[in-house]
Amino acid sequence: MIRVGVVGGTGYTGVELLRLLLCHPDVTVSVITSRSEAGRRLDDLFPSLLGTCELAFTDPAQADYSSCDVVFFATPHNVAMREVPTLLDQGIRVVDLSADFRLKDVGVWEQWYGETHRSPALCAEAVYGLPETHREAIRAARLVACPGCYPTAVQLGFLPLLEAGIIDTTQLIASCGSGVSGAGRQAKLGSLLTEAGESLAAYGVAGHRHLPEMEQGLSGMAAQPVQLTFVPHLVPMSRGIHATLFAQLNTKGADLQALFEKRFAHEPSVAVLPAGAFPATRNVRGANICQLAVAQPQGRDTVVVMSVIDNLVKGAAGQAVQAMNLMLDQPEMAGLEGIALAP
Amino acid sequence: MIRVGVVGGTGYTGVELLRLLLCHPDVTVSVITSRSEAGRRLDDLFPSLLGTCELAFTDPAQADYSSCDVVFFATPHNVAMREVPTLLDQGIRVVDLSADFRLKDVGVWEQWYGETHRSPALCAEAVYGLPETHREAIRAARLVACPGCYPTAVQLGFLPLLEAGIIDTTQLIASCGSGVSGAGRQAKLGSLLTEAGESLAAYGVAGHRHLPEMEQGLSGMAAQPVQLTFVPHLVPMSRGIHATLFAQLNTKGADLQALFEKRFAHEPSVAVLPAGAFPATRNVRGANICQLAVAQPQGRDTVVVMSVIDNLVKGAAGQAVQAMNLMLDQPEMAGLEGIALAP
Amino acid sequence: MIRVGVVGGTGYTGVELLRLLLCHPDVTVSVITSRSEAGRRLDDLFPSLLGTCELAFTDPAQADYSSCDVVFFATPHNVAMREVPTLLDQGIRVVDLSADFRLKDVGVWEQWYGETHRSPALCAEAVYGLPETHREAIRAARLVACPGCYPTAVQLGFLPLLEAGIIDTTQLIASCGSGVSGAGRQAKLGSLLTEAGESLAAYGVAGHRHLPEMEQGLSGMAAQPVQLTFVPHLVPMSRGIHATLFAQLNTKGADLQALFEKRFAHEPSVAVLPAGAFPATRNVRGANICQLAVAQPQGRDTVVVMSVIDNLVKGAAGQAVQAMNLMLDQPEMAGLEGIALAP
Amino acid sequence: MIRVGVVGGTGYTGVELLRLLLCHPDVTVSVITSRSEAGRRLDDLFPSLLGTCELAFTDPAQADYSSCDVVFFATPHNVAMREVPTLLDQGIRVVDLSADFRLKDVGVWEQWYGETHRSPALCAEAVYGLPETHREAIRAARLVACPGCYPTAVQLGFLPLLEAGIIDTTQLIASCGSGVSGAGRQAKLGSLLTEAGESLAAYGVAGHRHLPEMEQGLSGMAAQPVQLTFVPHLVPMSRGIHATLFAQLNTKGADLQALFEKRFAHEPSVAVLPAGAFPATRNVRGANICQLAVAQPQGRDTVVVMSVIDNLVKGAAGQAVQAMNLMLDQPEMAGLEGIALAP
Repeated sequence: MIRVGVVGGTGYTGVELLRLLLCHPDVTVSVITSRSEAGRRLDDLFPSLLGTCELAFTDPAQADYSSCDVVFFATPHNVAMREVPTLLDQGIRVVDLSADFRLKDVGVWEQWYGETHRSPALCAEAVYGLPETHREAIRAARLVACPGCYPTAVQLGFLPLLEAGIIDTTQLIASCGSGVSGAGRQAKLGSLLTEAGESLAAYGVAGHRHLPEMEQGLSGMAAQPVQLTFVPHLVPMSRGIHATLFAQLNTKGADLQALFEKRFAHEPSVAVLPAGAFPATRNVRGANICQLAVAQPQGRDTVVVMSVIDNLVKGAAGQAVQAMNLMLDQPEMAGLEGIALAP
Repeated sequence: MIRVGVVGGTGYTGVELLRLLLCHPDVTVSVITSRSEAGRRLDDLFPSLLGTCELAFTDPAQADYSSCDVVFFATPHNVAMREVPTLLDQGIRVVDLSADFRLKDVGVWEQWYGETHRSPALCAEAVYGLPETHREAIRAARLVACPGCYPTAVQLGFLPLLEAGIIDTTQLIASCGSGVSGAGRQAKLGSLLTEAGESLAAYGVAGHRHLPEMEQGLSGMAAQPVQLTFVPHLVPMSRGIHATLFAQLNTKGADLQALFEKRFAHEPSVAVLPAGAFPATRNVRGANICQLAVAQPQGRDTVVVMSVIDNLVKGAAGQAVQAMNLMLDQPEMAGLEGIALAP
Repeated sequence: MIRVGVVGGTGYTGVELLRLLLCHPDVTVSVITSRSEAGRRLDDLFPSLLGTCELAFTDPAQADYSSCDVVFFATPHNVAMREVPTLLDQGIRVVDLSADFRLKDVGVWEQWYGETHRSPALCAEAVYGLPETHREAIRAARLVACPGCYPTAVQLGFLPLLEAGIIDTTQLIASCGSGVSGAGRQAKLGSLLTEAGESLAAYGVAGHRHLPEMEQGLSGMAAQPVQLTFVPHLVPMSRGIHATLFAQLNTKGADLQALFEKRFAHEPSVAVLPAGAFPATRNVRGANICQLAVAQPQGRDTVVVMSVIDNLVKGAAGQAVQAMNLMLDQPEMAGLEGIALAP
Repeated sequence: MIRVGVVGGTGYTGVELLRLLLCHPDVTVSVITSRSEAGRRLDDLFPSLLGTCELAFTDPAQADYSSCDVVFFATPHNVAMREVPTLLDQGIRVVDLSADFRLKDVGVWEQWYGETHRSPALCAEAVYGLPETHREAIRAARLVACPGCYPTAVQLGFLPLLEAGIIDTTQLIASCGSGVSGAGRQAKLGSLLTEAGESLAAYGVAGHRHLPEMEQGLSGMAAQPVQLTFVPHLVPMSRGIHATLFAQLNTKGADLQALFEKRFAHEPSVAVLPAGAFPATRNVRGANICQLAVAQPQGRDTVVVMSVIDNLVKGAAGQAVQAMNLMLDQPEMAGLEGIALAP
């Protein structure tokens, strides 16, 4: 059995990670920490776990990870970068779901997050945890930086087009919608049902922290700098991200459907829909899958890609478990084969 | 491996049954039928199944169940009662999710469903598929009639009180709310998001078909006739049933919390919440569990029980799989240990 | 023109009051206060008001109500009881939407609210603002205490039965559901879309502050003490209250439909649905109306009443304006004739 | 008083038109027709109208519009084009909410709607009912073709940019989301709460009937042909359209905020938000207003416009009443000054 620790399990990413890990056939959750909830049983905070585990939250100051094979950080940014070095020194692998190690350029990170990075050297070592582009590196990694939710949906959607070099990389557009769980389990006015319900609104138009992460990843795929206009929207639902991507084709006659199907033919957590079908977030709710479709409306030069994930699964906890499976030589989709809950 | 057939898999109960059966460690789905969708792949109708099975719907006229150990009916009422006898004659066990065999009194059935029952003799043989009250009979059964969704939530909530004989059986009240999936996957005006969304309304107040089923079951628990006033409400959500039950205590000083905890201590799909906590449907979404709480407001004589289930799981497909496990000597919760999807 | 002041306009009751007052043909809003938002334009905080007014919030310490004919309190409890005496001394009428003056028994108030009442003498003077039972007293009042949202729906539903003396007053039951706006415009975990959405749950079962208010009002109607079991539920919608009421009839053969129609025949903000129809909260969204239905399932002794209101309109701001109209000799429904927004 | 007839009032556009017309200070609704609901009272079909009118639906075959000043068509396409000529011949003005007269090019109309147009000559005469671009023509019109919902939001958003000639007209992009009421009051699987709820999905990507209408209008503004890529999405809410528009600036340094504010400074049903604020559909729910914002992320060449309307009001019934007011020399916003219902 793989022994697992979880740092900061009181958010939605944390409880989702527990949902997956507690059902994983080869995992034992050994320790889970929370400063604010130390001593409280998990199933008291999250009644959905009632009957599934006897664990209680440990105070981070008392937590002992020495028996763990891997530790997950389900914390806000600014925690992992302080604590990861000690764990790595103990020979423990780390899967960080926060933003601390996603950006290779520490200066860019410091600019977007407004503080000094505490482990800049690890930014170079950390492997970006998108299996579709970094699988072999993940297998060998000590430290994996899990992609953000929007970046997962957006990068998988642009991937075949950028690798094929058939779109103009200077004016990519991503118009995305996210369920409210993307804002975390925090008491914020804008996340109230009365505010976010029965409404659609853009936010973060002037600049969202996922933008540099996406431009970094997309540039890597394109092997040249990419410029992306990214507009996220808050959608009146709990889970799900829908990315609608637009780009200008620089070539005629490409068979886009075949391009997408071929690129993802052997990817266990990506599915390309049949031509003419469009993805819906409801069809991936709770599942570790990205469903994709590509279209070329009116046969014009603007290509449209639609990409959906569950932000808490393929966009966070599921992809983290997928990385863990790779790192620890497990079947890549172990514990991740649950089918989406529809309706 | 248990070989399974499914009759009528195009509704929400059907796709939910497939979600559970396709992940069940000891089950192979051999055949699934639909008149209207014959020939169509399941994952075309239900994109949530993409990548999980290669099955297509078979025309019922061509379906061959001879290799099946068990056949599920996920049909509207009035189908199973016509087809079950042939299957039983072939030695195939049947789990019927429809209403055809739920009532022991054929006359009452015919009155509420407005037609002649085609297999009245089997009504006597059919075992009511509520494990908490009929476990041993289910193990031995050829034919199990799965309880309706409201009846599951309501009966489990009243069970300890009626068995203990501490409430007045002449004026039970059940004020229940159901998600819209309870109305089935049918194009009905009242189930539109624009009609059912952002609204709460009672329906079926004059008489709902689940009423005689509940009074039959509750009377069995009480060993005397029970009268229930049942008011269902349509709630703006997809899944979930919340039953709020009221009864008049005929005794003083009973420890209701202890009564409930003791009654369900060994039930794998029922959980009693700690005193003072109340259940929410979100905490059982997708899980085969009933969560319960009991209260006695202001210490008066009116006892209040709150009971929640996922109408498609413990209220339908999950409970059907639980019955199958019992009938075929599997671990009772095999394939049913998935944790609820919250948020 | 009636000159109006509003104390505390930053909550949902406040913005709803503004929506109604700004469109009222004979009202000018002169001053609106907020400690936290002093100096901020209303349409900056509430973009739904953009283009409808030029007002900004005034600091309560600077507010001058001397030109006002009437002042509304849209504050939490514990504010009005401190400030009302000064206003009354200036000859200004007050409509209090908070709970400060709803209970006649100051001791009961202090028990439920856990503090000392600052204006106990005014509790006796304050008129309970339910026009259907206190219309003439409201006309003559200096101080009106607007009913709570649940109490409005519940009291109107029981009113004809209690006045007619045909139900057992010792075991009334109210199973109610409220939209999330009932919890106010406050950043609370339980009101997040991710928590309250796609879920139904009871709360406050052990005792809700609206219970003594309801028992006071119902006892007044019955002219004898009434005992009510009240279970509120949080419903995944923004607006609306649905009350499902149960009582035991102590007489046979009453024409309940006729009783209800007659009682409310001349009430401008109550509508009894035709026999066989049931109310839905969507049909009163935004309107100052209570829609009612009564039923006697299976002809048994348990009567069921269904009562719906918009908690922010007939349950708060609308009923407050209705009281103001009566106090200032305006047409009772002036400014309140907007039709519900359905769908 | 203006005497009004309504053809086909059983859909959401119809009931919304009634909500507005019944509260309009200078309108009497004389006749309303429906084939399927002839003889039925409006408030029986739409309980939200209870207490507001005594009207019943008239069979179209018996309808007499001779006393009407204006007749609204709230019908699917293919009705108005058959019936309008007779009304115009009687001297009755017509406001058509359907698509029959929106396109000037009859060939394009026939291609997208798949049938022969019955009144091609009137396509030339009909005035496009967008007051912000056709106000004077509407005043003089006998027949107004009301814009579609998406076209209203999209055209108002692009209007200042196209008139100023500062964007590349060959690659406009509109990524839009609509509430489910946009699909009409029809029993369709895809509009069920269980299908459309808790999900986001694109549709009509290959070609939506609003595309030629938008390209016609945008080309008019640009005085040159415009190419638009239009991707609509179904959003889990009842009402509201959010259009997110993208275009490439062909000039540097334009003050976009000032451009928008100036263009709409005197428009009674358009509001430009302060710089840095973004519109939400909840803030226009029920109101006849379009709220707009413009941004230039990272100061790059891609301009982003956000435009929100209530699809049933400024996107349909409200804009139709606005046109009627202009045609009949009423104050343009008479009956349209209701404030949005938020939350």
